[in-house]
Amino acid sequence: MEKLTLIKVGGKIVEEPDTLQSLLKTFAQIPGHKVLVHGGGRSATKVAAQLGLESVMVNGRRVTDAETLKVVTMVYGGLVSKNIVAGLQSLSVNALGMTGADMDIIRSEKRPVKEVDYGFVGDVKKVRGDMLATLIRTGVVPVLAPLTHDGKGQLLNTNADTIAGEAAKALAAYFDVTLVFCFEKRGVLKDENDDDSVIPVINRVQFEQYVQDGIVQGGMIPKLENAFQAIDAGVKEVVITQASAILSDTGTRIVK
Amino acid sequence: MEKLTLIKVGGKIVEEPDTLQSLLKTFAQIPGHKVLVHGGGRSATKVAAQLGLESVMVNGRRVTDAETLKVVTMVYGGLVSKNIVAGLQSLSVNALGMTGADMDIIRSEKRPVKEVDYGFVGDVKKVRGDMLATLIRTGVVPVLAPLTHDGKGQLLNTNADTIAGEAAKALAAYFDVTLVFCFEKRGVLKDENDDDSVIPVINRVQFEQYVQDGIVQGGMIPKLENAFQAIDAGVKEVVITQASAILSDTGTRIVK
Repeated sequence: MEKLTLIKVGGKIVEEPDTLQSLLKTFAQIPGHKVLVHGGGRSATKVAAQLGLESVMVNGRRVTDAETLKVVTMVYGGLVSKNIVAGLQSLSVNALGMTGADMDIIRSEKRPVKEVDYGFVGDVKKVRGDMLATLIRTGVVPVLAPLTHDGKGQLLNTNADTIAGEAAKALAAYFDVTLVFCFEKRGVLKDENDDDSVIPVINRVQFEQYVQDGIVQGGMIPKLENAFQAIDAGVKEVVITQASAILSDTGTRIVK
Repeated sequence: MEKLTLIKVGGKIVEEPDTLQSLLKTFAQIPGHKVLVHGGGRSATKVAAQLGLESVMVNGRRVTDAETLKVVTMVYGGLVSKNIVAGLQSLSVNALGMTGADMDIIRSEKRPVKEVDYGFVGDVKKVRGDMLATLIRTGVVPVLAPLTHDGKGQLLNTNADTIAGEAAKALAAYFDVTLVFCFEKRGVLKDENDDDSVIPVINRVQFEQYVQDGIVQGGMIPKLENAFQAIDAGVKEVVITQASAILSDTGTRIVK
Protein backbone atom coordinates (compact mmCIF):
# COMPACT_ATOMS: atom_id res chain seq x y z
CA MET A 1 0.00 0.00 0.00
CA GLU A 2 1.06 3.58 -0.58
CA LYS A 3 2.07 5.66 2.41
CA LEU A 4 0.01 8.49 3.84
CA THR A 5 1.00 10.89 6.61
CA LEU A 6 -1.79 12.52 8.60
CA ILE A 7 -0.62 15.44 10.71
CA LYS A 8 -2.71 16.94 13.49
CA VAL A 9 -1.65 20.39 14.63
CA GLY A 10 -3.09 22.29 17.55
CA GLY A 11 -4.41 25.78 17.63
CA LYS A 12 -1.40 27.82 18.61
CA ILE A 13 0.82 26.77 15.72
CA VAL A 14 -1.71 27.57 13.00
CA GLU A 15 -2.88 30.80 14.57
CA GLU A 16 0.33 32.82 14.53
CA PRO A 17 1.67 33.84 11.11
CA ASP A 18 5.31 32.92 11.87
CA THR A 19 4.72 29.47 13.32
CA LEU A 20 2.08 28.78 10.64
CA GLN A 21 4.54 29.61 7.84
CA SER A 22 7.17 27.38 9.37
CA LEU A 23 4.68 24.52 9.86
CA LEU A 24 3.43 24.80 6.28
CA LYS A 25 6.98 24.72 4.91
CA THR A 26 7.69 21.57 6.91
CA PHE A 27 4.37 20.00 5.90
CA ALA A 28 5.05 20.77 2.22
CA GLN A 29 8.27 18.73 2.44
CA ILE A 30 6.58 15.55 3.66
CA PRO A 31 6.84 13.12 0.75
CA GLY A 32 3.82 11.25 -0.62
CA HIS A 33 0.15 11.48 0.27
CA LYS A 34 -0.80 13.64 3.22
CA VAL A 35 -3.64 15.16 5.21
CA LEU A 36 -3.58 18.07 7.68
CA VAL A 37 -6.03 18.31 10.58
CA HIS A 38 -6.06 21.62 12.41
CA GLY A 39 -7.57 23.21 15.48
CA GLY A 40 -8.22 26.88 16.03
CA GLY A 41 -9.44 27.18 19.59
CA ARG A 42 -7.44 30.24 20.55
CA SER A 43 -8.71 32.24 17.58
CA ALA A 44 -12.26 31.06 18.30
CA THR A 45 -11.96 32.26 21.89
CA LYS A 46 -10.57 35.59 20.69
CA VAL A 47 -13.26 36.18 18.06
CA ALA A 48 -15.97 35.04 20.51
CA ALA A 49 -14.69 37.57 23.07
CA GLN A 50 -14.66 40.34 20.43
CA LEU A 51 -18.29 39.46 19.70
CA GLY A 52 -19.13 39.60 23.41
CA LEU A 53 -19.44 35.83 23.87
CA GLU A 54 -17.82 34.12 26.82
CA SER A 55 -16.05 30.83 26.05
CA VAL A 56 -17.08 28.10 28.46
CA MET A 57 -14.81 25.05 28.59
CA VAL A 58 -15.66 21.83 30.44
CA ASN A 59 -13.00 19.10 30.62
CA GLY A 60 -11.08 20.92 27.91
CA ARG A 61 -14.07 20.91 25.54
CA ARG A 62 -15.86 24.04 24.36
CA VAL A 63 -19.53 24.30 25.30
CA THR A 64 -21.05 25.24 21.95
CA ASP A 65 -24.33 27.14 21.96
CA ALA A 66 -25.84 28.44 18.70
CA GLU A 67 -23.82 31.67 18.72
CA THR A 68 -20.59 29.85 19.58
CA LEU A 69 -21.25 27.39 16.74
CA LYS A 70 -21.38 30.37 14.36
CA VAL A 71 -18.02 31.54 15.71
CA VAL A 72 -16.29 28.18 15.34
CA THR A 73 -17.80 27.74 11.87
CA MET A 74 -16.33 31.12 10.90
CA VAL A 75 -12.97 30.56 12.55
CA TYR A 76 -12.27 26.84 11.90
CA GLY A 77 -14.10 26.49 8.57
CA GLY A 78 -13.21 29.95 7.25
CA LEU A 79 -10.33 31.90 8.77
CA VAL A 80 -7.95 29.14 9.86
CA SER A 81 -8.79 26.66 7.09
CA LYS A 82 -8.57 29.05 4.17
CA ASN A 83 -5.37 30.70 5.36
CA ILE A 84 -3.74 27.28 5.64
CA VAL A 85 -5.02 26.39 2.17
CA ALA A 86 -3.74 29.61 0.57
CA GLY A 87 -0.40 29.13 2.33
CA LEU A 88 -0.04 25.53 1.14
CA GLN A 89 -1.03 26.46 -2.41
CA SER A 90 1.82 29.00 -2.44
CA LEU A 91 4.11 26.04 -1.64
CA SER A 92 2.65 23.98 -4.53
CA VAL A 93 0.62 21.73 -2.21
CA ASN A 94 -2.83 21.22 -3.76
CA ALA A 95 -4.74 21.78 -0.53
CA LEU A 96 -8.52 21.59 -0.15
CA GLY A 97 -10.07 22.92 3.06
CA MET A 98 -12.94 20.74 4.25
CA THR A 99 -15.28 20.27 7.17
CA GLY A 100 -17.01 16.94 7.75
CA ALA A 101 -20.04 18.31 5.89
CA ASP A 102 -18.06 18.81 2.68
CA MET A 103 -18.57 15.78 0.46
CA ASP A 104 -20.21 14.25 3.54
CA ILE A 105 -16.81 13.02 4.69
CA ILE A 106 -17.48 12.98 8.46
CA ARG A 107 -20.89 12.47 9.99
CA SER A 108 -21.44 12.82 13.68
CA GLU A 109 -24.20 12.73 16.24
CA LYS A 110 -24.96 15.57 18.64
CA ARG A 111 -23.53 14.53 21.99
CA PRO A 112 -26.30 13.40 24.38
CA VAL A 113 -26.79 15.60 27.43
CA LYS A 114 -25.54 13.80 30.55
CA GLU A 115 -23.86 15.73 33.37
CA VAL A 116 -22.88 18.42 30.90
CA ASP A 117 -24.80 19.91 27.97
CA TYR A 118 -22.04 20.57 25.48
CA GLY A 119 -24.54 22.02 22.99
CA PHE A 120 -23.70 21.66 19.30
CA VAL A 121 -20.84 19.22 19.77
CA GLY A 122 -20.66 16.09 17.65
CA ASP A 123 -19.31 12.60 18.28
CA VAL A 124 -17.98 11.06 15.08
CA LYS A 125 -20.13 8.25 13.63
CA LYS A 126 -18.86 7.70 10.11
CA VAL A 127 -15.88 8.76 8.02
CA ARG A 128 -16.04 8.34 4.24
CA GLY A 129 -12.54 6.93 3.82
CA ASP A 130 -13.40 5.97 0.23
CA MET A 131 -14.21 9.56 -0.76
CA LEU A 132 -11.12 10.90 0.99
CA ALA A 133 -8.91 8.22 -0.58
CA THR A 134 -10.22 9.03 -4.07
CA LEU A 135 -9.50 12.73 -3.57
CA ILE A 136 -6.05 12.03 -2.15
CA ARG A 137 -5.13 9.75 -5.06
CA THR A 138 -5.83 12.60 -7.51
CA GLY A 139 -3.12 14.60 -5.71
CA VAL A 140 -5.40 16.63 -3.45
CA VAL A 141 -4.24 17.30 0.13
CA PRO A 142 -7.28 17.53 2.42
CA VAL A 143 -7.05 20.12 5.20
CA LEU A 144 -9.64 19.10 7.79
CA ALA A 145 -11.30 21.57 10.15
CA PRO A 146 -12.75 20.32 13.46
CA LEU A 147 -16.37 20.56 12.32
CA THR A 148 -18.71 17.76 11.29
CA HIS A 149 -22.41 17.46 10.44
CA ASP A 150 -25.30 15.22 11.35
CA GLY A 151 -26.63 14.71 7.81
CA LYS A 152 -29.77 16.64 8.72
CA GLY A 153 -28.35 20.09 8.09
CA GLN A 154 -26.73 20.65 11.47
CA LEU A 155 -23.03 21.50 11.74
CA LEU A 156 -21.37 20.23 14.92
CA ASN A 157 -18.17 21.26 16.69
CA THR A 158 -15.87 18.23 16.96
CA ASN A 159 -12.56 17.68 18.71
CA ALA A 160 -9.63 17.87 16.30
CA ASP A 161 -7.73 14.96 17.92
CA THR A 162 -10.80 12.80 17.41
CA ILE A 163 -11.13 13.89 13.78
CA ALA A 164 -7.46 13.03 13.21
CA GLY A 165 -7.81 9.61 14.85
CA GLU A 166 -11.04 8.70 13.05
CA ALA A 167 -9.78 9.92 9.67
CA ALA A 168 -6.55 7.95 10.13
CA LYS A 169 -8.54 4.78 10.94
CA ALA A 170 -10.81 5.22 7.91
CA LEU A 171 -7.82 5.83 5.63
CA ALA A 172 -5.97 2.78 6.98
CA ALA A 173 -8.05 0.65 4.60
CA TYR A 174 -6.47 2.45 1.65
CA PHE A 175 -2.99 3.54 2.77
CA ASP A 176 -0.17 2.73 5.20
CA VAL A 177 -1.06 5.54 7.57
CA THR A 178 1.31 7.35 9.91
CA LEU A 179 -0.64 9.56 12.30
CA VAL A 180 1.34 12.41 13.83
CA PHE A 181 0.03 14.44 16.76
CA CYS A 182 1.96 17.69 17.07
CA PHE A 183 2.46 18.88 20.56
CA GLU A 184 4.21 21.75 22.38
CA LYS A 185 6.71 19.28 23.91
CA ARG A 186 9.14 17.09 21.97
CA GLY A 187 7.15 13.96 22.76
CA VAL A 188 5.85 12.13 25.82
CA LEU A 189 8.26 13.10 28.59
CA LYS A 190 9.42 10.88 31.45
CA ASP A 191 10.01 14.04 33.47
CA GLU A 192 7.77 16.92 32.48
CA ASN A 193 10.44 19.42 33.55
CA ASP A 194 13.09 17.84 31.34
CA ASP A 195 12.53 18.36 27.61
CA ASP A 196 15.27 15.82 26.89
CA SER A 197 13.45 12.98 28.67
CA VAL A 198 11.40 11.97 25.62
CA ILE A 199 10.23 8.34 25.79
CA PRO A 200 11.07 7.04 22.28
CA VAL A 201 8.55 4.14 22.16
CA ILE A 202 5.49 3.26 24.23
CA ASN A 203 3.41 0.12 23.94
CA ARG A 204 0.08 -0.52 25.65
CA VAL A 205 1.62 -2.36 28.64
CA GLN A 206 4.17 0.38 29.22
CA PHE A 207 1.44 3.02 28.84
CA GLU A 208 -0.64 1.44 31.59
CA GLN A 209 2.42 1.27 33.82
CA TYR A 210 3.28 4.93 33.12
CA VAL A 211 -0.29 5.98 34.00
CA GLN A 212 -0.12 3.93 37.22
CA ASP A 213 3.21 5.52 38.11
CA GLY A 214 1.86 9.02 37.42
CA ILE A 215 4.41 9.60 34.64
CA VAL A 216 1.69 9.96 32.01
CA GLN A 217 -1.16 12.11 33.30
CA GLY A 218 -3.78 14.76 32.49
CA GLY A 219 -4.52 15.57 28.86
CA MET A 220 -1.85 13.13 27.68
CA ILE A 221 -3.97 10.13 28.77
CA PRO A 222 -6.87 10.65 26.27
CA LYS A 223 -4.29 11.57 23.58
CA LEU A 224 -2.53 8.23 24.08
CA GLU A 225 -5.81 6.29 24.39
CA ASN A 226 -6.71 7.80 21.05
CA ALA A 227 -3.36 6.73 19.63
CA PHE A 228 -3.73 3.10 20.81
CA GLN A 229 -7.27 2.93 19.39
CA ALA A 230 -5.90 4.10 16.04
CA ILE A 231 -3.15 1.44 16.12
CA ASP A 232 -5.70 -1.25 17.04
CA ALA A 233 -7.85 -0.14 14.11
CA GLY A 234 -5.07 -0.60 11.56
CA VAL A 235 -3.12 2.67 11.60
CA LYS A 236 0.49 1.68 11.06
CA GLU A 237 2.21 4.15 13.31
CA VAL A 238 1.30 6.97 15.68
CA VAL A 239 3.90 9.58 16.59
CA ILE A 240 3.68 12.31 19.20
CA THR A 241 6.17 15.05 18.46
CA GLN A 242 6.80 18.74 17.98
CA ALA A 243 5.65 20.43 14.77
CA SER A 244 9.21 21.54 14.01
CA ALA A 245 10.41 17.92 14.32
CA ILE A 246 7.91 16.28 11.94
CA LEU A 247 10.60 15.48 9.39
CA SER A 248 13.02 14.05 11.96
CA ASP A 249 12.84 10.71 13.73
CA THR A 250 12.49 12.17 17.23
CA GLY A 251 9.30 12.15 19.30
CA THR A 252 7.41 9.27 20.87
CA ARG A 253 6.28 6.33 18.75
CA ILE A 254 3.17 4.46 19.89
CA VAL A 255 3.21 0.76 19.10
CA LYS A 256 0.99 -2.25 19.93
CA MET B 1 -22.06 17.59 -24.05
CA GLU B 2 -23.71 17.10 -20.69
CA LYS B 3 -25.65 19.96 -19.19
CA LEU B 4 -24.53 21.99 -16.20
CA THR B 5 -26.47 24.67 -14.37
CA LEU B 6 -24.51 27.31 -12.47
CA ILE B 7 -26.64 29.36 -10.09
CA LYS B 8 -25.46 32.60 -8.55
CA VAL B 9 -27.41 33.77 -5.53
CA GLY B 10 -26.95 37.05 -3.74
CA GLY B 11 -26.41 37.64 -0.10
CA LYS B 12 -29.92 38.17 1.22
CA ILE B 13 -31.29 34.80 0.10
CA VAL B 14 -28.52 32.73 1.67
CA GLU B 15 -28.35 34.73 4.88
CA GLU B 16 -31.85 34.19 6.25
CA PRO B 17 -32.70 30.65 7.38
CA ASP B 18 -36.16 30.60 5.70
CA THR B 19 -35.13 31.85 2.29
CA LEU B 20 -31.96 29.72 2.43
CA GLN B 21 -33.97 26.54 3.08
CA SER B 22 -36.33 27.33 0.24
CA LEU B 23 -33.42 28.11 -2.11
CA LEU B 24 -31.62 24.88 -1.21
CA LYS B 25 -34.76 22.82 -1.81
CA THR B 26 -35.17 24.38 -5.23
CA PHE B 27 -31.47 23.95 -6.01
CA ALA B 28 -31.59 20.29 -4.98
CA GLN B 29 -34.29 19.70 -7.59
CA ILE B 30 -32.26 20.99 -10.52
CA PRO B 31 -31.46 17.92 -12.60
CA GLY B 32 -27.91 17.06 -13.69
CA HIS B 33 -24.59 18.70 -12.89
CA LYS B 34 -24.69 21.93 -10.96
CA VAL B 35 -22.66 24.58 -9.16
CA LEU B 36 -23.78 27.20 -6.62
CA VAL B 37 -22.01 30.55 -6.27
CA HIS B 38 -22.99 32.59 -3.24
CA GLY B 39 -22.46 36.03 -1.75
CA GLY B 40 -22.68 36.95 1.90
CA GLY B 41 -22.23 40.70 2.00
CA ARG B 42 -24.98 41.46 4.51
CA SER B 43 -23.61 38.97 7.05
CA ALA B 44 -20.10 40.31 6.47
CA THR B 45 -21.30 43.85 7.16
CA LYS B 46 -23.10 42.65 10.28
CA VAL B 47 -20.14 40.67 11.67
CA ALA B 48 -17.77 43.53 10.79
CA ALA B 49 -20.00 45.95 12.71
CA GLN B 50 -20.09 43.59 15.71
CA LEU B 51 -16.29 43.55 15.62
CA GLY B 52 -16.22 47.34 15.48
CA LEU B 53 -15.22 47.56 11.81
CA GLU B 54 -16.96 50.01 9.49
CA SER B 55 -17.84 48.63 6.06
CA VAL B 56 -16.73 51.00 3.32
CA MET B 57 -18.30 50.42 -0.10
CA VAL B 58 -17.16 52.18 -3.29
CA ASN B 59 -19.19 51.60 -6.48
CA GLY B 60 -20.94 48.70 -4.78
CA ARG B 61 -17.60 47.00 -3.93
CA ARG B 62 -16.31 46.43 -0.41
CA VAL B 63 -13.02 48.13 0.42
CA THR B 64 -11.13 45.23 2.00
CA ASP B 65 -8.37 46.07 4.46
CA ALA B 66 -6.57 43.30 6.40
CA GLU B 67 -9.19 43.14 9.17
CA THR B 68 -12.07 43.17 6.69
CA LEU B 69 -10.41 40.36 4.75
CA LYS B 70 -10.46 38.28 7.94
CA VAL B 71 -14.18 39.00 8.32
CA VAL B 72 -15.09 38.03 4.75
CA THR B 73 -12.88 34.92 5.00
CA MET B 74 -14.81 33.92 8.13
CA VAL B 75 -18.23 34.80 6.76
CA TYR B 76 -18.01 33.75 3.09
CA GLY B 77 -15.57 30.84 3.47
CA GLY B 78 -16.90 29.63 6.82
CA LEU B 79 -20.34 30.66 8.02
CA VAL B 80 -22.25 31.03 4.76
CA SER B 81 -20.41 28.32 2.82
CA LYS B 82 -20.57 25.60 5.45
CA ASN B 83 -24.21 26.23 6.31
CA ILE B 84 -25.13 25.92 2.64
CA VAL B 85 -23.06 22.72 2.40
CA ALA B 86 -24.66 21.14 5.48
CA GLY B 87 -28.11 22.14 4.20
CA LEU B 88 -27.47 20.64 0.76
CA GLN B 89 -26.06 17.43 2.26
CA SER B 90 -29.33 17.01 4.20
CA LEU B 91 -31.06 17.11 0.79
CA SER B 92 -28.69 14.45 -0.62
CA VAL B 93 -26.70 16.93 -2.69
CA ASN B 94 -23.01 16.09 -2.38
CA ALA B 95 -21.88 19.68 -1.83
CA LEU B 96 -18.29 20.83 -1.36
CA GLY B 97 -17.68 24.38 -0.16
CA MET B 98 -14.70 25.98 -1.87
CA THR B 99 -12.88 29.25 -2.23
CA GLY B 100 -10.66 29.92 -5.21
CA ALA B 101 -7.66 28.84 -3.11
CA ASP B 102 -9.07 25.34 -2.60
CA MET B 103 -7.56 23.05 -5.22
CA ASP B 104 -6.23 26.27 -6.76
CA ILE B 105 -9.46 26.61 -8.73
CA ILE B 106 -9.51 30.42 -9.07
CA ARG B 107 -6.42 32.58 -9.11
CA SER B 108 -6.65 36.32 -9.09
CA GLU B 109 -4.48 39.40 -8.96
CA LYS B 110 -4.77 42.11 -6.34
CA ARG B 111 -6.56 44.99 -7.98
CA PRO B 112 -4.09 47.79 -8.82
CA VAL B 113 -4.66 51.03 -6.95
CA LYS B 114 -6.05 53.71 -9.27
CA GLU B 115 -8.58 56.29 -8.03
CA VAL B 116 -9.63 53.85 -5.32
CA ASP B 117 -7.54 51.50 -3.18
CA TYR B 118 -9.86 48.52 -2.76
CA GLY B 119 -7.31 46.72 -0.59
CA PHE B 120 -7.35 42.91 -0.69
CA VAL B 121 -9.68 42.63 -3.66
CA GLY B 122 -8.82 40.28 -6.50
CA ASP B 123 -9.52 40.36 -10.22
CA VAL B 124 -9.87 36.84 -11.61
CA LYS B 125 -6.95 35.68 -13.78
CA LYS B 126 -7.40 31.92 -14.17
CA VAL B 127 -10.10 29.35 -13.45
CA ARG B 128 -9.16 25.65 -13.39
CA GLY B 129 -12.15 24.44 -15.38
CA ASP B 130 -10.46 21.05 -15.74
CA MET B 131 -10.23 20.49 -11.97
CA LEU B 132 -13.79 21.68 -11.44
CA ALA B 133 -15.08 19.49 -14.29
CA THR B 134 -13.32 16.41 -12.87
CA LEU B 135 -14.88 17.01 -9.44
CA ILE B 136 -18.32 17.65 -10.92
CA ARG B 137 -18.18 14.44 -13.00
CA THR B 138 -17.64 12.43 -9.80
CA GLY B 139 -20.99 13.76 -8.55
CA VAL B 140 -19.65 16.59 -6.40
CA VAL B 141 -21.55 19.89 -6.38
CA PRO B 142 -19.11 22.78 -5.85
CA VAL B 143 -20.38 25.64 -3.69
CA LEU B 144 -18.17 28.62 -4.49
CA ALA B 145 -17.53 31.45 -2.03
CA PRO B 146 -16.51 34.87 -3.36
CA LEU B 147 -12.86 34.53 -2.32
CA THR B 148 -9.86 33.79 -4.51
CA HIS B 149 -6.08 33.70 -4.02
CA ASP B 150 -3.00 35.02 -5.77
CA GLY B 151 -0.98 31.80 -5.61
CA LYS B 152 1.48 33.48 -3.24
CA GLY B 153 -0.47 32.82 -0.06
CA GLN B 154 -2.78 35.83 -0.19
CA LEU B 155 -6.54 35.39 -0.10
CA LEU B 156 -8.48 38.06 -2.00
CA ASN B 157 -12.09 39.21 -1.80
CA THR B 158 -13.71 38.79 -5.22
CA ASN B 159 -17.11 39.77 -6.57
CA ALA B 160 -19.51 36.81 -6.68
CA ASP B 161 -21.05 37.80 -10.04
CA THR B 162 -17.55 37.78 -11.52
CA ILE B 163 -16.78 34.37 -9.98
CA ALA B 164 -20.02 33.01 -11.44
CA GLY B 165 -19.29 34.44 -14.90
CA GLU B 166 -15.67 33.27 -14.96
CA ALA B 167 -16.50 29.79 -13.63
CA ALA B 168 -19.28 29.45 -16.22
CA LYS B 169 -16.88 30.41 -19.02
CA ALA B 170 -14.21 27.95 -17.83
CA LEU B 171 -16.78 25.15 -17.53
CA ALA B 172 -18.18 25.86 -21.01
CA ALA B 173 -15.29 23.81 -22.43
CA TYR B 174 -16.64 20.72 -20.63
CA PHE B 175 -20.42 21.18 -20.35
CA ASP B 176 -23.40 22.93 -21.95
CA VAL B 177 -23.57 25.64 -19.30
CA THR B 178 -26.66 27.58 -18.25
CA LEU B 179 -25.68 30.48 -15.99
CA VAL B 180 -28.48 31.77 -13.77
CA PHE B 181 -28.18 35.05 -11.89
CA CYS B 182 -30.76 35.21 -9.11
CA PHE B 183 -32.11 38.62 -8.44
CA GLU B 184 -34.72 40.25 -6.18
CA LYS B 185 -36.92 41.05 -9.22
CA ARG B 186 -38.44 38.48 -11.60
CA GLY B 187 -36.02 39.43 -14.36
CA VAL B 188 -34.98 42.54 -16.27
CA LEU B 189 -38.02 44.82 -16.11
CA LYS B 190 -39.19 47.21 -18.83
CA ASP B 191 -40.78 49.33 -16.07
CA GLU B 192 -39.03 49.03 -12.71
CA ASN B 193 -42.30 49.72 -10.91
CA ASP B 194 -44.13 46.89 -12.69
CA ASP B 195 -43.01 43.40 -11.65
CA ASP B 196 -44.98 41.95 -14.57
CA SER B 197 -42.97 43.83 -17.17
CA VAL B 198 -40.22 41.20 -17.44
CA ILE B 199 -38.39 41.34 -20.77
CA PRO B 200 -38.27 37.64 -21.81
CA VAL B 201 -35.25 37.82 -24.15
CA ILE B 202 -32.51 40.41 -24.69
CA ASN B 203 -29.83 40.31 -27.34
CA ARG B 204 -26.81 42.63 -27.51
CA VAL B 205 -28.46 45.09 -29.94
CA GLN B 206 -31.57 45.32 -27.80
CA PHE B 207 -29.43 45.71 -24.67
CA GLU B 208 -27.62 48.70 -26.13
CA GLN B 209 -30.93 50.24 -27.15
CA TYR B 210 -32.38 49.66 -23.64
CA VAL B 211 -29.35 51.34 -22.06
CA GLN B 212 -29.68 54.28 -24.47
CA ASP B 213 -33.39 54.61 -23.63
CA GLY B 214 -32.66 54.45 -19.88
CA ILE B 215 -34.73 51.27 -19.48
CA VAL B 216 -31.69 49.28 -18.33
CA GLN B 217 -29.62 51.29 -15.85
CA GLY B 218 -27.50 51.25 -12.69
CA GLY B 219 -26.29 47.92 -11.35
CA MET B 220 -28.11 46.01 -14.07
CA ILE B 221 -25.69 47.29 -16.72
CA PRO B 222 -22.54 45.49 -15.40
CA LYS B 223 -24.70 42.40 -14.67
CA LEU B 224 -25.81 42.27 -18.32
CA GLU B 225 -22.32 43.10 -19.63
CA ASN B 226 -21.12 40.12 -17.59
CA ALA B 227 -23.85 37.97 -19.11
CA PHE B 228 -22.99 38.94 -22.70
CA GLN B 229 -19.30 38.26 -22.05
CA ALA B 230 -20.21 34.80 -20.80
CA ILE B 231 -22.33 34.11 -23.88
CA ASP B 232 -19.51 35.34 -26.15
CA ALA B 233 -17.11 32.98 -24.32
CA GLY B 234 -19.21 29.89 -25.00
CA VAL B 235 -21.76 29.77 -22.16
CA LYS B 236 -24.92 28.46 -23.76
CA GLU B 237 -27.50 30.47 -21.94
CA VAL B 238 -27.65 33.18 -19.28
CA VAL B 239 -30.86 33.73 -17.34
CA ILE B 240 -31.68 36.53 -14.92
CA THR B 241 -34.52 35.51 -12.63
CA GLN B 242 -35.79 35.20 -9.07
CA ALA B 243 -34.43 32.41 -6.87
CA SER B 244 -37.95 31.01 -6.37
CA ALA B 245 -38.40 30.80 -10.15
CA ILE B 246 -35.22 28.88 -11.01
CA LEU B 247 -37.17 25.78 -12.00
CA SER B 248 -39.68 27.67 -14.15
CA ASP B 249 -39.13 29.21 -17.57
CA THR B 250 -39.75 32.79 -16.49
CA GLY B 251 -37.08 35.48 -16.16
CA THR B 252 -34.95 37.18 -18.79
CA ARG B 253 -32.85 35.12 -21.20
CA ILE B 254 -29.71 36.73 -22.57
CA VAL B 255 -28.84 35.68 -26.11
CA LYS B 256 -26.21 36.73 -28.71
